[in-house]
Amino acid sequence: MYAVIMAGGSGTRFWPASRTHLPKQFLRITGEQTLFEETLARIRPLVPDSNIYVVVNARHAAMTRQLLGTCAAEVLIEPQGCNTAACIGLAALHIRQRDAHAPILVLPSDHFVGDTARFTHLLTAAARIAGAEEAIVTLGVPPTRPETGYGYIEVGNEQGEAQDVSYFQVERFVEKPDRDTALHYLASGRYLWNSGIFVFTAQTILSEIAHHMPRLYAGLREIEPAIGSARYAAVLESVYQKLEAVSIDYGVMEKTRLPIYVLRADFGWSDVGSWQALYELRQEAQDADGNLLLGKAVAVDARQNLVYSTTKRLVALLGVEELTIVDTPDALLVSARHRSQEVRQIPELLRRSGYSQLC
Amino acid sequence: MYAVIMAGGSGTRFWPASRTHLPKQFLRITGEQTLFEETLARIRPLVPDSNIYVVVNARHAAMTRQLLGTCAAEVLIEPQGCNTAACIGLAALHIRQRDAHAPILVLPSDHFVGDTARFTHLLTAAARIAGAEEAIVTLGVPPTRPETGYGYIEVGNEQGEAQDVSYFQVERFVEKPDRDTALHYLASGRYLWNSGIFVFTAQTILSEIAHHMPRLYAGLREIEPAIGSARYAAVLESVYQKLEAVSIDYGVMEKTRLPIYVLRADFGWSDVGSWQALYELRQEAQDADGNLLLGKAVAVDARQNLVYSTTKRLVALLGVEELTIVDTPDALLVSARHRSQEVRQIPELLRRSGYSQLC
Repeated sequence: MYAVIMAGGSGTRFWPASRTHLPKQFLRITGEQTLFEETLARIRPLVPDSNIYVVVNARHAAMTRQLLGTCAAEVLIEPQGCNTAACIGLAALHIRQRDAHAPILVLPSDHFVGDTARFTHLLTAAARIAGAEEAIVTLGVPPTRPETGYGYIEVGNEQGEAQDVSYFQVERFVEKPDRDTALHYLASGRYLWNSGIFVFTAQTILSEIAHHMPRLYAGLREIEPAIGSARYAAVLESVYQKLEAVSIDYGVMEKTRLPIYVLRADFGWSDVGSWQALYELRQEAQDADGNLLLGKAVAVDARQNLVYSTTKRLVALLGVEELTIVDTPDALLVSARHRSQEVRQIPELLRRSGYSQLC
Repeated sequence: MYAVIMAGGSGTRFWPASRTHLPKQFLRITGEQTLFEETLARIRPLVPDSNIYVVVNARHAAMTRQLLGTCAAEVLIEPQGCNTAACIGLAALHIRQRDAHAPILVLPSDHFVGDTARFTHLLTAAARIAGAEEAIVTLGVPPTRPETGYGYIEVGNEQGEAQDVSYFQVERFVEKPDRDTALHYLASGRYLWNSGIFVFTAQTILSEIAHHMPRLYAGLREIEPAIGSARYAAVLESVYQKLEAVSIDYGVMEKTRLPIYVLRADFGWSDVGSWQALYELRQEAQDADGNLLLGKAVAVDARQNLVYSTTKRLVALLGVEELTIVDTPDALLVSARHRSQEVRQIPELLRRSGYSQLC
């Protein structure tokens, strides 16, 4: 079994904690470890270290290697971020040289999983299904709200069981819906959130890329003979400059004629997509007044605030409610908590205002 | 003419900008200069430098000397803060050795004055009255709200004019009223706020202290022969340990049988008593959304907030209203703006919580 941890993402929704040089997967927001380390720790019992491939942006390669510590995973460095299709194609290319028919677990590096044992059980089942036939297996999260920020999976008939886990035919992948559609999806009970977790063999996914994304496949074919050679980095750089940034969902999943199966990911999943999501996720760490104080803080008559600090400064709250306060050495955010989705506007504004070094 | 600038105060209402080692008079909150420097600058055109006495706490002596710069004022160092009666008595003691009958302008060091020309004119008039007869002259501020945090002066009949300024008999000094009483004072039109500004001669005030505060006067008599000698500091220390901390208002003004006159202080006065008061005072510096941003800050859809920063960090506001945010190198305050009066609770809490170094 192989694993691909996709750690090439960049985002600004956790500004000012997250920056260009420090995206979300490298933040310690859900616990003592970074989301990347937590992802790695979940996957290591399933996959031998040497079969784990971590795909990162060049600017985060050194940090990734440091976080890997003694884990002998392979680090694949992308010269620039190019969305998930290229990331997965590149990793599958490397893995195909070792084993074209072994199942590969493909995982985002910046999600939260509550129940690791259940996660392990489901991925083992998914790998068994994906290894047994030329199929794509994905995990879908039972929706709990009419979320408009996720893609959805329409679920069809049950296809069978693997290790006591039922799996279902995927009717279709659908992109982020509008509010009314999301309400309909939620009410129907026939839709799951697309978790971004996939299992397939290298042979399967590369065939599909060849079929549905011929330009990407041509690029991968250019890279293939350079693997292990001194010119690898230069070829990669040259190829990546020509690639379009397309997601695997759009590039392959929405178009494939292969069977796709989905398992219900009932292991306490969150994509931790905003400060608000983090606040909701970590109820266990909230104080009696609903304050989530991640850092040195005192609160006087303050309720339901989120404080996240990467400094040693004391944060004192007095008489405030439902704020997100993020304290870093060079920038401080004070935001209405329910407006977390708009946080990304701040680095955009700063870039236009000559404060690029804070983005 | 002489002046006494009372700079011995300590306070916690501007925490975390103000600390034990940095009280309000040493903050740059109303402009480029500290309140102390602004007070000094207002008084220097009226009084020769060598006739200005600055009374400070020992822990602030070095900072005071630095802020005096080229001003050759006399710095009187109190070993501990002991309220205004001791402060004024000590300064009057020093001045009596030079001139017992010259008017002394006594001023708090941490107030705001909008119209310096009017301030100068009124103090000149007050000095003329105080120098002409053995009287106490004070300045009272026309009240604009039923403030319960100030003492009040009940105004009697007009006594005359000095330099085109009318002055009135003071009926009585009254301590901080409750809300109903304050409403009555405001409606009656017969009350002024006690500004803490007084004019009298050294002879006058020391006679009154001798009469109404015999223990303080006994202490001052102990100090008097030591002035200018090597044992001065030791004597002062010993005497101050025995003194009670009493205000000049309570100790003398409320009890004296001398005539007290009051002038209407119509020069745009504020005691800048809280972050809220500062916000109201500095309307000229607010942006179009009513944000008062004193420091490096950006605001997105944020209204009527006060940001005060002593760091170079960027403060970003998103979707918040009516907050006070005070950013310092080791502590950050995020408070509901209208609860500024409660800010002093924070350092009290910190002291109990083992964070005395932040108080």
